[in-house]
Amino acid sequence: MTAYKDLSRAELLEKKSILESEFAKIKAKDLKLDMSRGKPSKAQLDISMGMMDVLDSGSDLTCEEGVDCRNYGVIDGIKEAKQLFADMMEVPKENIIVFGNSSLNVMHDTVARAMTHGIMGNAPWAKLDKVKFLCPVPGYDRHFAITEHFGIEMVNIPMTEEGPNMDQVEELVQADPAVKGIWCVPQYSNPQGITYSDGTVHRFAHLKPAAEDFRIFWDNAYGIHHLYEDKQDKLLEILAECEKAGHPDMVYQFASTSKISFPGAGIASIAASTRNLEEIRKMMSVQTIGHDKLNQLRHVRFFGNLKGMEEHMKKHADIMRPKFEAVLHVLEEELGGLGIGSWIAPKGGYFISFDAMEGCAKAIVAKAKEAGLIMTKAGATFPYGKDPLDSNIRIAPSFPTPEELEIAANVFVLSVKLASIEKLLGDVRG
Amino acid sequence: MTAYKDLSRAELLEKKSILESEFAKIKAKDLKLDMSRGKPSKAQLDISMGMMDVLDSGSDLTCEEGVDCRNYGVIDGIKEAKQLFADMMEVPKENIIVFGNSSLNVMHDTVARAMTHGIMGNAPWAKLDKVKFLCPVPGYDRHFAITEHFGIEMVNIPMTEEGPNMDQVEELVQADPAVKGIWCVPQYSNPQGITYSDGTVHRFAHLKPAAEDFRIFWDNAYGIHHLYEDKQDKLLEILAECEKAGHPDMVYQFASTSKISFPGAGIASIAASTRNLEEIRKMMSVQTIGHDKLNQLRHVRFFGNLKGMEEHMKKHADIMRPKFEAVLHVLEEELGGLGIGSWIAPKGGYFISFDAMEGCAKAIVAKAKEAGLIMTKAGATFPYGKDPLDSNIRIAPSFPTPEELEIAANVFVLSVKLASIEKLLGDVRG
Repeated sequence: MTAYKDLSRAELLEKKSILESEFAKIKAKDLKLDMSRGKPSKAQLDISMGMMDVLDSGSDLTCEEGVDCRNYGVIDGIKEAKQLFADMMEVPKENIIVFGNSSLNVMHDTVARAMTHGIMGNAPWAKLDKVKFLCPVPGYDRHFAITEHFGIEMVNIPMTEEGPNMDQVEELVQADPAVKGIWCVPQYSNPQGITYSDGTVHRFAHLKPAAEDFRIFWDNAYGIHHLYEDKQDKLLEILAECEKAGHPDMVYQFASTSKISFPGAGIASIAASTRNLEEIRKMMSVQTIGHDKLNQLRHVRFFGNLKGMEEHMKKHADIMRPKFEAVLHVLEEELGGLGIGSWIAPKGGYFISFDAMEGCAKAIVAKAKEAGLIMTKAGATFPYGKDPLDSNIRIAPSFPTPEELEIAANVFVLSVKLASIEKLLGDVRG
Repeated sequence: MTAYKDLSRAELLEKKSILESEFAKIKAKDLKLDMSRGKPSKAQLDISMGMMDVLDSGSDLTCEEGVDCRNYGVIDGIKEAKQLFADMMEVPKENIIVFGNSSLNVMHDTVARAMTHGIMGNAPWAKLDKVKFLCPVPGYDRHFAITEHFGIEMVNIPMTEEGPNMDQVEELVQADPAVKGIWCVPQYSNPQGITYSDGTVHRFAHLKPAAEDFRIFWDNAYGIHHLYEDKQDKLLEILAECEKAGHPDMVYQFASTSKISFPGAGIASIAASTRNLEEIRKMMSVQTIGHDKLNQLRHVRFFGNLKGMEEHMKKHADIMRPKFEAVLHVLEEELGGLGIGSWIAPKGGYFISFDAMEGCAKAIVAKAKEAGLIMTKAGATFPYGKDPLDSNIRIAPSFPTPEELEIAANVFVLSVKLASIEKLLGDVRG
C-alpha cells in the first residue's frame, strides 16, 4: 500500500474516479444505516428478557431492610441494589446511592445542585463569575452538553494512551480556582476505548486543586463492559485511591445498568465519600421520596450478584466482539498503510475512535450521510461541537446487525478515501 | 355536650383528672401507631399486583410509535402513556410529557430549571434579588420544602372553602413582579380535602401577573382519588381555562400514579402549553435520554385506559372510605360540640385537616406521641413549618389498618381534649 500523500496528482485523480463510481453504486442502493449512537442491539436486549419474569404477582416485594418496595420510602436505594453496585464499582456499599433510570440524569442533577447550592458550604457555582470544567478530548458529547447547558466554560485536555494529559490537568487544577471539575470516562473511554493507567489514576487521586469544591466526575460507564475474556483492561478504583491520598471527597463516581440490562429501564448509581453522600441525600430528600424500588429489586433478583452480572456481560461481549472485529477488519484492510486515518482497537466499551486527516472529519461524515450512513456528527466528541483539527469521528458499531455493519464499514472507508483525496487535491469544499 | 370554654375551672380540672387516667392507661399499652404520612396501605398496594404480570419475557415491548421500550429513545414518554395521562388530566395528549417515578421530582426539577435557566427567556430566578411563591395554607409540606430549598420566599395565603383566598392572590400576583408562582393542590387539597370551585379556577385563569414568568404550579395529585361514587367533587380543567383566558402558558399541571398504582414505582406527568413543553423538552434532553419506558408501558397495559383506571380507583375508595369514616366518626362522637376543634369531611384525597384551638397543635402532637401515636409534625402544613396560630394538624388515615385506626383516632381525640383543657387552664407548657 502506498500512502495517499505519496501518490501523484494523476494517481489521486485516477483513484478518485474509481472511488466515485463505487460511491455512485452505493448511493443507488438507497441504504439506511446508522453507526451514530452507542445503542445496544435487539440481540443484546433479548439476553435480559429474563428480567421481565423475576417479579410477578406472586413475588415477595420486600427488600432486605424490610420495606415494601411498592410503597414510599428508602430514598437512597434498597440495600441489595447498593450491594450490587458496590461490588460492580469496587467500593463499600456505604458509599453507594442508587437512583432510577440513567446515570446521565444523576450527573446532570449533580452539576445542577452544585450550581444552585454549591458543594459542602462553598459558593453555589451559579454565583461565581466563572466556572470551568476540564474536558479530556475526544470525549462524550452528553457530558459536554451538561456543562454547556449550565454555562460552564470547557477546557480541552488532550487524551493520551494512558488517559488525559495529566501534566495539563495538574497544572490547571492547581493553578485555577475556577476549575471545578473534570469529565472522565476512565475505562474503555468514549470514544477511544482507552483505560486510564494506574499512574494516571494515582495522579488524579493526588491532585491538589485550588478549588475546595473541585470534583472529578468519574463516569465509569463501561466498568464491566469487556469485549474479551482473556484481554481485559483493569482500572484502579479511584475512591480508595483518593482516600489514601487524603482527598476522599474529591471524586463522584457514576455507573448504571443501561448497557447491562435495558437502556430504557435501568438503574443508576453514584459512589462517593460519606460526606459527599450525606450532602447529596439531604438535597435528594427535597427532590423525591425515592426512586423506583421495584426496578432496583428486579435487577437484583435477576443478576443475583456481581458474578451473575459478569456472566451476563459475557453474553453482551459475544454479540459485540464480532461487530467490533468486523469494523476493525474493514478499517485495517481498506485503510491500512494509506496514511489517511488512525484508530485504536479497544478491548471494551461501545466505540471505535477514528482520526482522519486534519480537516476531513466533517467531509467524511457528510459523504457517509450522502450514501445513507449516519455517523455521529463530526465535532461531537469535543466541547461545543468544535473539533479544532476537524479530525475525530466516533464509530458506534453496536446497533446494526453484523450484515449491515459490514456494508456500513465499507461505506465509511469509501467516504474516508474520497474525502481524503479531495483534501489532498485541495478541492475539499467548506 | 357543653363546650369546654363554658366549663368552670373545677369542671375542667375534674375532666382533666379523668382524661389523665385514661391517658395513663393508653400509654401503658406501649402503642406504635402512625397517622403521619399519606402512604397507601398494604391492601391498596395489593390491588395493583396485576401490574407485575402484564409484562413478561413473552411480551411485545414495542410502543405505539414503533420504538422498543427496552432501548434508548422517546424522551418525553411513549404515546400510549401520554394518552392515559391526557385522559386522566383532561387535556390533549400533545400537552403531556411523561416522566419516571414521582411528580415531586418533576416539580422540583421544574423549579430548578427556572432557577438556573429562567422561563421563556426571562432571567433565571437565581439571578434575581427576590423570588416569591404564594402558598395556600394549610398546604403540602413537600411543596414548601422545594421552594424553601431554593431560597424562594413563601407568602401564606389562607384557604377558603372554595380554594385560596383569590382576592389576596390576585392582588399579590398583579402587584408584585417578584411573585413567580403559587403552589396549588386543586382537588381534594392536602390537607383539607377542598376542591377549588369553578369560580376560583376562573379567577386563576384570568390572573394578570406582573411577572411574565409567573406560573401556577397545579399539583393535581388527587384528580381521580374519590372516596364515594355518588359524591364526587368536579374540578374545572385549568389548562383549557387559561387558554380561553389568553394565558395558555401560565400553568404547569402535575399528576402521577403514585396513589393509583405504586408509590415506590409509579409514573408522573406534566401537562402544559405547547410552548412550555417545548422548553421543558429541550432542557430535559440535556438531563436524560429518556425515563423508564417499560414502566410506562406496564402502566398502560395494566389500566388499559382511563375507564380501567377509574374502575381501579373504586377499589382504592372501598379501602379508604371506611378509614376516613372511622376517624370522622370518632372526631364527631368525641369532639362534637366541645368547641375545641373543627374539621372538614372530605370527599376524596388522603387527609383530614384538623384545626385545634389556637396554640394547641404542638401540644396535641406531643401528647399523641407520648401515647405512641405519630402525627404529622405540627406546623408542617405551613411554609417554614410555622403555623402562626399553632392550630392545624394533618390526619393521614390511609396507612394503619382499620383496627389500628380506631385506636389511633381515640388517642388523638384524647390528646386534643387534654391539650385543650391545659390551654384553657392556662398551664400549657412551651
